[in-house]
Amino acid sequence: MSDCGILPPMETELSKKLGVEHAIFGFTPFPAVAAAITRAGGFGVLGAVRYTAPDDLARDLDWMQEHTDGKPYGLDVVMPARKVEGVTEADVEAMIPAGHRQFVQDTLAKHGVPELAEGEASGWRITGWMEEVARNQLDVAFEYPIKLLANALGSPPADVVRRAHDGDVLVAALAGSARHARHHADAGIDVVVAQGYEAGGHTGEIASMVLVPDVVDAVGPLPVLAAGGIGSGEQIAAGLALGAQGVWLGSLWLTTEEADLHSRALTRKLLAAGSGDTVRSRALTGKPARQLRTEWTDAWDDPSGPGTLPMPLQGLLVAEAVSRIQKYETGALLGTPVGQIVGRMNTERSVQAVFDDLTSGFERAVDRINRIAGRSVA
Amino acid sequence: MSDCGILPPMETELSKKLGVEHAIFGFTPFPAVAAAITRAGGFGVLGAVRYTAPDDLARDLDWMQEHTDGKPYGLDVVMPARKVEGVTEADVEAMIPAGHRQFVQDTLAKHGVPELAEGEASGWRITGWMEEVARNQLDVAFEYPIKLLANALGSPPADVVRRAHDGDVLVAALAGSARHARHHADAGIDVVVAQGYEAGGHTGEIASMVLVPDVVDAVGPLPVLAAGGIGSGEQIAAGLALGAQGVWLGSLWLTTEEADLHSRALTRKLLAAGSGDTVRSRALTGKPARQLRTEWTDAWDDPSGPGTLPMPLQGLLVAEAVSRIQKYETGALLGTPVGQIVGRMNTERSVQAVFDDLTSGFERAVDRINRIAGRSVA
Repeated sequence: MSDCGILPPMETELSKKLGVEHAIFGFTPFPAVAAAITRAGGFGVLGAVRYTAPDDLARDLDWMQEHTDGKPYGLDVVMPARKVEGVTEADVEAMIPAGHRQFVQDTLAKHGVPELAEGEASGWRITGWMEEVARNQLDVAFEYPIKLLANALGSPPADVVRRAHDGDVLVAALAGSARHARHHADAGIDVVVAQGYEAGGHTGEIASMVLVPDVVDAVGPLPVLAAGGIGSGEQIAAGLALGAQGVWLGSLWLTTEEADLHSRALTRKLLAAGSGDTVRSRALTGKPARQLRTEWTDAWDDPSGPGTLPMPLQGLLVAEAVSRIQKYETGALLGTPVGQIVGRMNTERSVQAVFDDLTSGFERAVDRINRIAGRSVA
Repeated sequence: MSDCGILPPMETELSKKLGVEHAIFGFTPFPAVAAAITRAGGFGVLGAVRYTAPDDLARDLDWMQEHTDGKPYGLDVVMPARKVEGVTEADVEAMIPAGHRQFVQDTLAKHGVPELAEGEASGWRITGWMEEVARNQLDVAFEYPIKLLANALGSPPADVVRRAHDGDVLVAALAGSARHARHHADAGIDVVVAQGYEAGGHTGEIASMVLVPDVVDAVGPLPVLAAGGIGSGEQIAAGLALGAQGVWLGSLWLTTEEADLHSRALTRKLLAAGSGDTVRSRALTGKPARQLRTEWTDAWDDPSGPGTLPMPLQGLLVAEAVSRIQKYETGALLGTPVGQIVGRMNTERSVQAVFDDLTSGFERAVDRINRIAGRSVA
């Protein structure tokens, strides 16, 4: 399995099933990062939420296919299990109170954020979260030899699970509690990603140290990946010690050379942030998601403000504002989903260099734990 | 070092220095539990905050001395680094607003909690948190062969550190961030207990998975203990993989046979609670402390209520109410500080049985990680 003649350093039943050298799963919205993770011997998972046009996804999957040396990779979609019939984006728009729209404009004005130019699209749209868009993404995705389809929010619909299994594609879903995980298992999925409190993006209140064994106990022998708080080889060893069959890392890749955040100011903010500079806030989507703490999240979390709206209203409400903040790099408001390991993301390096650190750090952690346990290792 | 002729299963520089077989530190307010942890080969740490009379502490330390087979143990005090001169409990009482007192009485009345009998003392008093009481505790403690003195809140005063070192007693302090940990190191302490978000009692917002390596990086080569989220051998392996020289467990012992919670209803509540049934609330002391979520914590955390007071006012305000709730076992209000691992505390067993599970679970976790890493172990 290894390219360099030594034993593979991180092999589990799941990694063998997927034909991957190291049980390190890297989630990222950037094809160049996902491909580099796969080439390094991990399992790159491309986040598809930003693709509203199926052709854009097809173009990037073509590129992935050409740049992964025949090694395995996967795709992450946002696919609600329940379909809401006949609801358009305009219907959802109409549900947003005027006071909330005013609060967005007031907050942007207070920080002098310019308007977008006429006809300039908002970069992040609610549409990527809607069933129809996700189904179009899947029609494209199943044309490619993806090995894993992950669903970021809830259990995927039964027909999608069947379609994946018919194509020998494993299905994964994220869970923030043992109850969520059991629900996924009942839906017939193959892998549960246990996403702890410290993770970037949508996350619950139970920390990885407690959540991972909870989920392993709840769904075993189904394989579990540990997500949240993992950005070093030592943290990988910890996740595996907790019973996971692999680890799922998202935040760590945001400051790699291959990532394209479209904002140097945001990259600098991430490189400078400490472990305590994130917050679990509903500001971005209406559900609690860990992100950089900014004056934008503070404004939404302030009891004197109007408070956030439920998903998907909040995401639709703030989409244009988020685009403006990113485009004009408004320092005090500029944020992104990221986990508490942001405190470890202090230099810009290649994905390969980051990956090498993970595998060597893992080896050191295994050595250390064997010394503590009094084991002689050959 | 081992009693049973095999290699000690958990040996670090710190465990060797303390002369303890396993690098498992057990914090508990119950002498019978602390002594049993020490006898099992761990390091029992007796929490002294509830001792207001020095003689009571002396009596329990006499008992500890007789029941620890000459093996090492420690003491945990609450000792503020800054002394507030001439402030009495009555002065502090006078700072509590009448509206807050009324809210306490209204909440108790709503749940039909009876009054204490005339002259019946409140079980939990603010005095245990005050400098003078802590100093009296120390005068007693240094008469006994304690090996470690831990300070639960902040860095201990310089003269206490000197006095401990003069008696060959190591000094430990709890930290919720790398910054706190550096502050402790500057104060000359010997061991930092990195207490993650998922821990019971006072805790910060950074989860153990991120906090432990943060603190190890910040204060190394000073030894760090991992606290928060640890209630199994697998979690011990994870904590050690993160760079800790041992683990610090508090919650796990609350449901052991040797623990005396003075309330069967509370024990049953702990045994039934899941990982998601705790909350980080200021309701008990004025600082965020993880505890069982109850209608009492909900009342204090409700935005429509008066909100909590700063430490030490909140503790003084609620002391009598907490005693009444505990004495009359008012189910909906009955709580205790406990970490997210409460979800794993599902049976009442002896400390020895719990300890055996920890060490055997640790061995299994080490075996598993070696298989994943492709190591052959002798």
